[in-house]
This record gives sequence, structure tokens and C-alpha cells, in this order.
Amino acid sequence: MDFITLIGLLAAFGTTFSFLPQAIKIIKTKNTEGISLSMYLMFTVGVFLWLIYGYMKSDTPAMVANGITLILASIILFLKLKYKPKL
Amino acid sequence: MDFITLIGLLAAFGTTFSFLPQAIKIIKTKNTEGISLSMYLMFTVGVFLWLIYGYMKSDTPAMVANGITLILASIILFLKLKYKPKL
Repeated sequence: MDFITLIGLLAAFGTTFSFLPQAIKIIKTKNTEGISLSMYLMFTVGVFLWLIYGYMKSDTPAMVANGITLILASIILFLKLKYKPKL
Repeated sequence: MDFITLIGLLAAFGTTFSFLPQAIKIIKTKNTEGISLSMYLMFTVGVFLWLIYGYMKSDTPAMVANGITLILASIILFLKLKYKPKL
């Protein structure tokens, strides 16, 4: 494995799995008050486009990272909508 | 501009500027209760590595996106630490 690929994999690990403690925190507390709905709407669409971009560039670390990130961000978006404060 | 670059720029726009409404929400409400500190610690390190990765691959859309994302994520991390609930 070359150095660029190693940096890519470490980057992938950091940004991808960062969403895991956020998802776990929401599942445990059911509290999404501080979470921005606009952020997760924009982020989920954006990371889906990064997935397509990685595919078109045959960039394996980017595809793996963005695929998993898409799943985790979608879970947070779903939980934000589920636990939305009642009006 | 070719189609791949266009997808990259749209992806960059989505994931980068998604952190803006989150930062604004925290600045307005001073509420970071639902925000995961672990997420923003891991994410900030990860996006910094993506910036290096983009530089090494001479990938301009990735560099621009990750540079701005790094600034916005750092602001959210700083605010999370600043408005941490007192024990």
C-alpha cells in the first residue's frame, strides 16, 4: 500500500466513523435538540454525490468511506426526523 | 468543465456548506446538548487528512471542499467545548 492510499484510508476512517458516536448518542438519549436538520439534509445529499464522484474517478478509499458515511448520516437524519420536538 | 468535476463541485457544496446551518444553530441557541464531542474530534482530524489526501492527488474540488469543511467543523468543535454543560 502506498503512502497516499494510507492517508486516504485514515481520512476515511476518521470522517466515516465519526458519525457513529453521534448516532449512538441520539439512540441512547433520544435528544436531537442541538442537531441541525438542514445540516443532515444537505450532508446526506452531498455525501451521496461524493459516492458517485469516487465511483467515476475509480477512487476506492473515497467510495468505501462515502458509502458507509452515507448510511450513518442517513440514520442520524432519520432519528432527527423521528425525535423532532412536537409543536 | 467536465461532468465529473461538476459532480465533485456539487458534492463539495453539499457536504461543506451543510456544516454552516449547524454552526449558526449553535451560535444562536448556545445549545450543544445533542451534539457528540467524539464525532467532532474524529471528524476534524479526518477532514484534515482528506485535505492532505486531496493535495497529494492534485484533486482540486476535494481540496477546496475539505479546506472549508475543516474550518466549519473546527468552529463547531470549539463551540461544543465552549458551551459544554457544567458538571
